[in-house]
Amino acid sequence: MAERLVISIDAMGGDNAPDAIIEGVKIASDKNPEVFFLLFGDEDEISRLARQNQLNEKCYKIYHTDQVVKPDEKPSAAVRYGRESSMWKAIFAVRTGEASAVVSAGNTGALMAMSKICLGTMAGVDRPAIAAIMPTQKPNKDVIALDLGANAECNATNLVEFAIMGSVFRRIVYGEKRPTVALLNIGSEETKGREEIKQAAAILKRNKDKVNYVGFAEGHDIGTGHTDVIVSDGFSGNVALKSIEGTAHMVKNMIKTYAKKSVLAWLAVPLILPTYLRLKKRVDPRRYNGAMFLGLNGISVKSHGGADAMGYSFAVESAINLVRNDLCEKIRIDLEDIIFSDEDAQL
Amino acid sequence: MAERLVISIDAMGGDNAPDAIIEGVKIASDKNPEVFFLLFGDEDEISRLARQNQLNEKCYKIYHTDQVVKPDEKPSAAVRYGRESSMWKAIFAVRTGEASAVVSAGNTGALMAMSKICLGTMAGVDRPAIAAIMPTQKPNKDVIALDLGANAECNATNLVEFAIMGSVFRRIVYGEKRPTVALLNIGSEETKGREEIKQAAAILKRNKDKVNYVGFAEGHDIGTGHTDVIVSDGFSGNVALKSIEGTAHMVKNMIKTYAKKSVLAWLAVPLILPTYLRLKKRVDPRRYNGAMFLGLNGISVKSHGGADAMGYSFAVESAINLVRNDLCEKIRIDLEDIIFSDEDAQL
Repeated sequence: MAERLVISIDAMGGDNAPDAIIEGVKIASDKNPEVFFLLFGDEDEISRLARQNQLNEKCYKIYHTDQVVKPDEKPSAAVRYGRESSMWKAIFAVRTGEASAVVSAGNTGALMAMSKICLGTMAGVDRPAIAAIMPTQKPNKDVIALDLGANAECNATNLVEFAIMGSVFRRIVYGEKRPTVALLNIGSEETKGREEIKQAAAILKRNKDKVNYVGFAEGHDIGTGHTDVIVSDGFSGNVALKSIEGTAHMVKNMIKTYAKKSVLAWLAVPLILPTYLRLKKRVDPRRYNGAMFLGLNGISVKSHGGADAMGYSFAVESAINLVRNDLCEKIRIDLEDIIFSDEDAQL
Repeated sequence: MAERLVISIDAMGGDNAPDAIIEGVKIASDKNPEVFFLLFGDEDEISRLARQNQLNEKCYKIYHTDQVVKPDEKPSAAVRYGRESSMWKAIFAVRTGEASAVVSAGNTGALMAMSKICLGTMAGVDRPAIAAIMPTQKPNKDVIALDLGANAECNATNLVEFAIMGSVFRRIVYGEKRPTVALLNIGSEETKGREEIKQAAAILKRNKDKVNYVGFAEGHDIGTGHTDVIVSDGFSGNVALKSIEGTAHMVKNMIKTYAKKSVLAWLAVPLILPTYLRLKKRVDPRRYNGAMFLGLNGISVKSHGGADAMGYSFAVESAINLVRNDLCEKIRIDLEDIIFSDEDAQL
């Protein structure tokens, strides 16, 4: 790790780049003045925005890049032809050790592919996973879910690795000693679901001292907050995540549509506004911004492409927090520590 | 089909059986006086409830059974040892032609397994699927989703069959000529997702005159109402369904929790009540009760286990509607009609 905590920023990735990115860095920098930022992208634009936002000159350095990875670019093409891009250069700074983590709001698939190639997969990890923090109905309780889309298909070993990585991630972010971990399935009985899930459950049960495995969870359990970590293959996880986001959005739109037709409902606005604002703050997507690629030799954080400055600053702070808590090293120790029986090793 | 429209009822399945079942039959019978019901279960209890609910004596017949399939019974065990149960006997009445459809609020897995064995799978269908109707944010638009849990793993042919069956189901329920059909995936680009989904997309594209295939949908698209039918394997579909139900529940609980703390919000209740009631009616789970097993030689409808009388009556009416519109015959014709190219046949 660099002596001063250094975060590498892909300043050109995301719908609102580079404006929201630099503004977001400013917010994060004000809260964490000891952190140094490497800003990759168009030098002229970034300098202008840095001055405009009064970013402390002692806290950043700009590296000029001409190329930008497009939002719809295929990951394979980005990896092959994007070596001069702000995204690649920003990740590369983590590889060389100049920075301790990278944050990008650009193309998710490209960021994943580039991070994987550039940083490499951790020893003992077959496949890295995307993890994110989501709100639950319990007032002060979030849930960590993974994989959210990196691996459309997974075997039992992948799922067990995700369980370990998710558990460590949870410990670091929330300081809980033995976070509860569940496997996403389509029923709570042991006989239900796909073969790889049942195998993963068997392995996790044999390693309860390492991972606090509590059984299967179903789609509706994600939001109850009964479990700290929920593990799935990337396809199901992505479907669940987007179904949840879509439903929250749908409910909001439905309430709007129905309320619009009622004068009485309009009269109620001043009365329900404080409640609405508190609830809105609790589920503010910006607070939950910053998905992690777990299982790489380095910290790579994906900000939502549409994030505003405040949202982006949360992703940056999440990266800072993980560096401070030495995420990669802790995952490495836990992975080595888990006892795969001979039976498990054959999976 | 029997001369008079006959519906077979598993009167002992479900959390509130037989009370809510017989009360639900009464509601459906009042609206459809020409329908005759076969009621399978405890004769004494059913007679008492039928009298109590003033069920028209000319509209039903009771068949006594002693055995009940338990909610947590394994499907394989239910099939083997449950041949004297109300569930099996009710399904068997469809097989013999005494009834045209069966409705049960009992154990889903057992109902699926028993229906499959007892009624048989339609020629041309490899795997039956569970389909259900779900609300969307568009005021008068629902979406049909399948498979919701019958098949944890599916190949391309299965998905294509689901697309055809879902399309016919939609036509019958909503009278739309060319309902739009999408495949659930984790991205909208053609290169995304699992191999079987890409293969299914290719087959559906070649058969656009038969199925109005419109491309991939993601989890958040289920609730927008942009597509009439959404097709997935049973695992992802089940995860999506439960994530959506869970989120709706979560949002409701969160609003309650936050509103409880505010006196102002309580004062607003009379003003927002009419809007709340309209919205509640629109998304009333009872209105969406009645999942269909598609692809069998007969109509088998699953009511939610926790349904009340009103909810159960919707499941019964859904069965009546499908019999009247000759669902099975129409699916059979469409399946025969679709052109599987030689290439497709090899899948």
